Amino acid sequence: MSVRVGILGATGAVGQRFIQLLDDHPTFELAAVTASEESAGKTYREAAKWRVNTPIPDDVAEMTVGATTPDDVPDDVDLLFSSLPSGAAAEVEPDFLEEGYVVSSNSSNDRMAPDVPLTIPEINPGHLDLIEVQRDERGWDGALVKNPNCSTITMVPTLAALDQFGLESVQVSTLQAVSGAGYSGVTSMEIIDNAIPHIGGEEEKMETESRKLLGTFDGTGVDLHGMDVAASCNRIPTLDGHLENVFAETEEDVSPEEAAAAMREYPSADLPSSPDQLIHVFEDLERPQPRLDRERGDGMQISAGGLQETEAGLKYNCLAHNTIRGAAGASLLNGELLVEEGWV
Amino acid sequence: MSVRVGILGATGAVGQRFIQLLDDHPTFELAAVTASEESAGKTYREAAKWRVNTPIPDDVAEMTVGATTPDDVPDDVDLLFSSLPSGAAAEVEPDFLEEGYVVSSNSSNDRMAPDVPLTIPEINPGHLDLIEVQRDERGWDGALVKNPNCSTITMVPTLAALDQFGLESVQVSTLQAVSGAGYSGVTSMEIIDNAIPHIGGEEEKMETESRKLLGTFDGTGVDLHGMDVAASCNRIPTLDGHLENVFAETEEDVSPEEAAAAMREYPSADLPSSPDQLIHVFEDLERPQPRLDRERGDGMQISAGGLQETEAGLKYNCLAHNTIRGAAGASLLNGELLVEEGWV
Amino acid sequence: MSVRVGILGATGAVGQRFIQLLDDHPTFELAAVTASEESAGKTYREAAKWRVNTPIPDDVAEMTVGATTPDDVPDDVDLLFSSLPSGAAAEVEPDFLEEGYVVSSNSSNDRMAPDVPLTIPEINPGHLDLIEVQRDERGWDGALVKNPNCSTITMVPTLAALDQFGLESVQVSTLQAVSGAGYSGVTSMEIIDNAIPHIGGEEEKMETESRKLLGTFDGTGVDLHGMDVAASCNRIPTLDGHLENVFAETEEDVSPEEAAAAMREYPSADLPSSPDQLIHVFEDLERPQPRLDRERGDGMQISAGGLQETEAGLKYNCLAHNTIRGAAGASLLNGELLVEEGWV
Amino acid sequence: MSVRVGILGATGAVGQRFIQLLDDHPTFELAAVTASEESAGKTYREAAKWRVNTPIPDDVAEMTVGATTPDDVPDDVDLLFSSLPSGAAAEVEPDFLEEGYVVSSNSSNDRMAPDVPLTIPEINPGHLDLIEVQRDERGWDGALVKNPNCSTITMVPTLAALDQFGLESVQVSTLQAVSGAGYSGVTSMEIIDNAIPHIGGEEEKMETESRKLLGTFDGTGVDLHGMDVAASCNRIPTLDGHLENVFAETEEDVSPEEAAAAMREYPSADLPSSPDQLIHVFEDLERPQPRLDRERGDGMQISAGGLQETEAGLKYNCLAHNTIRGAAGASLLNGELLVEEGWV
Repeated sequence: MSVRVGILGATGAVGQRFIQLLDDHPTFELAAVTASEESAGKTYREAAKWRVNTPIPDDVAEMTVGATTPDDVPDDVDLLFSSLPSGAAAEVEPDFLEEGYVVSSNSSNDRMAPDVPLTIPEINPGHLDLIEVQRDERGWDGALVKNPNCSTITMVPTLAALDQFGLESVQVSTLQAVSGAGYSGVTSMEIIDNAIPHIGGEEEKMETESRKLLGTFDGTGVDLHGMDVAASCNRIPTLDGHLENVFAETEEDVSPEEAAAAMREYPSADLPSSPDQLIHVFEDLERPQPRLDRERGDGMQISAGGLQETEAGLKYNCLAHNTIRGAAGASLLNGELLVEEGWV
Repeated sequence: MSVRVGILGATGAVGQRFIQLLDDHPTFELAAVTASEESAGKTYREAAKWRVNTPIPDDVAEMTVGATTPDDVPDDVDLLFSSLPSGAAAEVEPDFLEEGYVVSSNSSNDRMAPDVPLTIPEINPGHLDLIEVQRDERGWDGALVKNPNCSTITMVPTLAALDQFGLESVQVSTLQAVSGAGYSGVTSMEIIDNAIPHIGGEEEKMETESRKLLGTFDGTGVDLHGMDVAASCNRIPTLDGHLENVFAETEEDVSPEEAAAAMREYPSADLPSSPDQLIHVFEDLERPQPRLDRERGDGMQISAGGLQETEAGLKYNCLAHNTIRGAAGASLLNGELLVEEGWV
Repeated sequence: MSVRVGILGATGAVGQRFIQLLDDHPTFELAAVTASEESAGKTYREAAKWRVNTPIPDDVAEMTVGATTPDDVPDDVDLLFSSLPSGAAAEVEPDFLEEGYVVSSNSSNDRMAPDVPLTIPEINPGHLDLIEVQRDERGWDGALVKNPNCSTITMVPTLAALDQFGLESVQVSTLQAVSGAGYSGVTSMEIIDNAIPHIGGEEEKMETESRKLLGTFDGTGVDLHGMDVAASCNRIPTLDGHLENVFAETEEDVSPEEAAAAMREYPSADLPSSPDQLIHVFEDLERPQPRLDRERGDGMQISAGGLQETEAGLKYNCLAHNTIRGAAGASLLNGELLVEEGWV
Repeated sequence: MSVRVGILGATGAVGQRFIQLLDDHPTFELAAVTASEESAGKTYREAAKWRVNTPIPDDVAEMTVGATTPDDVPDDVDLLFSSLPSGAAAEVEPDFLEEGYVVSSNSSNDRMAPDVPLTIPEINPGHLDLIEVQRDERGWDGALVKNPNCSTITMVPTLAALDQFGLESVQVSTLQAVSGAGYSGVTSMEIIDNAIPHIGGEEEKMETESRKLLGTFDGTGVDLHGMDVAASCNRIPTLDGHLENVFAETEEDVSPEEAAAAMREYPSADLPSSPDQLIHVFEDLERPQPRLDRERGDGMQISAGGLQETEAGLKYNCLAHNTIRGAAGASLLNGELLVEEGWV
């Protein structure tokens, strides 16, 4: 029982990850790839500067790239993944939604819109029901679901595990890999022997998206979680894997051991791309490290470590693969949830 | 009126920086270099694997390296700089102090000892008077002064500037350069395309030393500052320059503009190696950056930027050159203060 | 029909690769791991600082590490892989050979000894018959087989393909990854934003080993190939994968197209770890690249590209994964050949 | 007696180096900076994304940027430095030459034109007399002089020193820094943990420019040197400094010692920016290294090392700072020669 899927923006860095992840997928069958006007009509091999370290799957290499319009996507495609730049996504995603497509989108536009579910399947699957509100308000036959930003998704599962103790405030510093900015986003002159203490819009995303993800859906909308979140985002000379230092304060006292247990026991989801265990907690204070740990659970597991008490609460570190769990894999997992819940 | 100085542990990474900084010094004249037993008797050129990117000064290259004992240091040397590993320093520094030498030490041993001044000349020069207590208690003719750890010194000047508003709590994440671990401290396999979220002992140093530096000297000892400090320390693939993200809470409300003004106006010291302005504050949110800004003020200026409000207080970034302002330059500056204040 | 194997020097960087490669091996079963005296008696998990980016196989993690002496290796182990430092290997390998073990060794000692086969299974499998000579001369019941150095093995398959045109001279420059020096071989201060134009002993290895590999075995010894080889070896800030620029002159004229065809058609071996195609030749002048191409054929394929004419002959580039094809995988493949040919 | 100079293309990476180098220049006074239409009318501070690690000189920061047309350059400017992209340079340089400006250009267009001097002042200053031919043929009042490509200039001084022994063939492999491609030329995703074995057009430049530089000017044109040159060019993850491996064959036998002596004794020029010694030769086989040696002679000295015999001749390594000696400094030095020889 396979589901025919398409990728909007298939030639970029996240698009290439989608193709890599879909290559072995048990139920999704890739049936359409779109890109910009200039690429339309070329084979995928011609259109994409393939930069993932596994070869292009042969069948995908020979697929014809379409333009990113509903006309160029076959009608029997049931689910679209979107990795368009947010400006382009804001323009063209509505066209697909009007035509009735279900779109699982990694693009940052509309993530905080009140009628758009922002979802991590292991964290807030129930928010998917916002689709009803969305259809009512927008008159769409399709459905738009977003996954959060890569730096948000790295931290939120650990916060979800701690929220049983009453999260009050979170301060987080990120050490983010260059792939998060896309293939050409960070030049080598900018980052070799360097670090950049600012990523445009990233801090706001972490501060708002995390409160929506941990918020409460009441049938008509999502009440944001009441915790304070303050983020400082840094780019460092690492290829893949975002590492984050979290300082968290909770209503109840919680020891590092209790926090570790809460993270280890936080349930995963029963979806094809979910890891067996959602959060792996290291005892070794030197872990997690981007290069050694980003591939855990095929890039879908969250790692944590360094749990220690502070005067005010807890500090710890967490890590995720930013272009798998933090981008293409996140959308894919939302796609799997949409199928599971009967929206596709 | 020159002062004859020596370097204990002159062949290591910090020792090489001492030599580089002393090369042009207006009043200090290098008269002795010591290293381990195996190096004793060799010329400095033979003994050191010189790795600084300016050539060894010719006269230093031909100096004979002594062993690190008072016997191998000429009597007319007035001031010693110590960049020994802390274990070795703990053993041999007392020998020099008993012989009456004044030692400005970068080694981490004894920094928190109640009778040892831990000093940044622009911040707490008055703590130098602890030397009286030290001499009383230890019976030394000499004097031992310490400078703080490189990650501490990067942050403390900005905290000193903010303390007029009543510092209550500080959370800090560091992005530290590999040179902080010495020439062989971090292997290339450990750090290329990676980051390490732990540096042994570093977090404790930041949490305690900062409270001593901003503490109050009452004539007999230093009362630690009452603020809470929590630190998360990371190593990243950068050669020189520690970048830090600070979240600070103060008793009084302070706007980013007031905080920036307080930093800019914080006075520097009138010593040869002090920068004209102690803290440079950038408007550009992308600065400071290690590679672009670590050389400011010949490596002795602190840079700050990214000042923004949070729910709980302020966040900002700061940066310093870890082997100049954070190590050799810090000891040198303490040496200048010792001369200025008449201890040498 | 499994073969019980052991690893001498199992905790180092190459030893860890052996364990990773053996984890899925169709016929080899890991039955013994040895390391230095200090590690003996510990579990492998305790003894090794595991740094490969897949977890330690559970059964290996719980194995007890032995000392590197025949007494600590079970008698029913049929084949040993050696990744000892060459000094240690020179001392202890003979002990195992006297006891009758067959040793496939990656250590550099004895590679050029006249009675030791230096073998790449796809290139000179017939040299294995030197074992007869070796046993006669040394009185060993076992057998010692060596694989070449990582920088040699990257280039030799392409030279073997060109030798039908009569190789006369080869000039080669290497861009070698840091993992070739072992986990602690290159410090981060040495190599970030840098390159080092010398690797001790490496140039001589390339110049001599390549002539032995392409030499002729006449039943009693190997006549070295008559070509001139000159090598310049460089270390660059890359983790894995040696890239090499080759300038080759041949007796017969050969066009880039003929050279590419000769490489593509050069036969692989029919062994479990041999790649389907030995040499992949890229048309794209920008390939091969270490990060993108080192994993081809599970790290066992050689890549080539950039074939162009020069006034004097040909130039081209080649690449291999230095710790798989160039070290652990090379020994493993020799082990497979030893089994196939009935020496085990 | 100062000379008023201007920079065409002053906001780019090489343009910023020009400004840095001119800041302390004894005789040149910066009087005009030009850039693209969009930048015209802005202050230099606004127009340039300043990325050199010394601050913008205050007076330059406040200069108004002109468009790159003769109208926007004051008439009393005597000498122009051009660091335009080669396409733009090919279009606009003639406009300035017709107006009578003397242009010392780093752009690659027209380097091999028969009537354009391609000059390194220490190597072939006499080629400047081609300007007479150029004026005759083109009817220009001005004069156009080019410096070679950064990878060419790194090697040619060492070849010039060896040419007394009769250079016959040269094979060279380069390890080139990312700054050679301009600020945005190489993305971080392309080069971290990687190397790229091709740089478009670079090999041809080395192969042809080196023969023109060492060629003979007979009053009407330059006879190219008869040696064969074959180059393989690689990009590596280094910021500044090109390292090159050279294999050279000469008519006469020459020992490494004789070659080193020839390099050391090769005369420098008596110009403000020439280094005291043109080529520094290291005994240490591990030198030169980009990060440690690129700043020698304020970035204007060539370093060499690793001289060794091969079967066919010599091998050695050389290094130069690619954006100083290899670009802005090269043009600057040609400007100094133009003044010295009376062309300005």
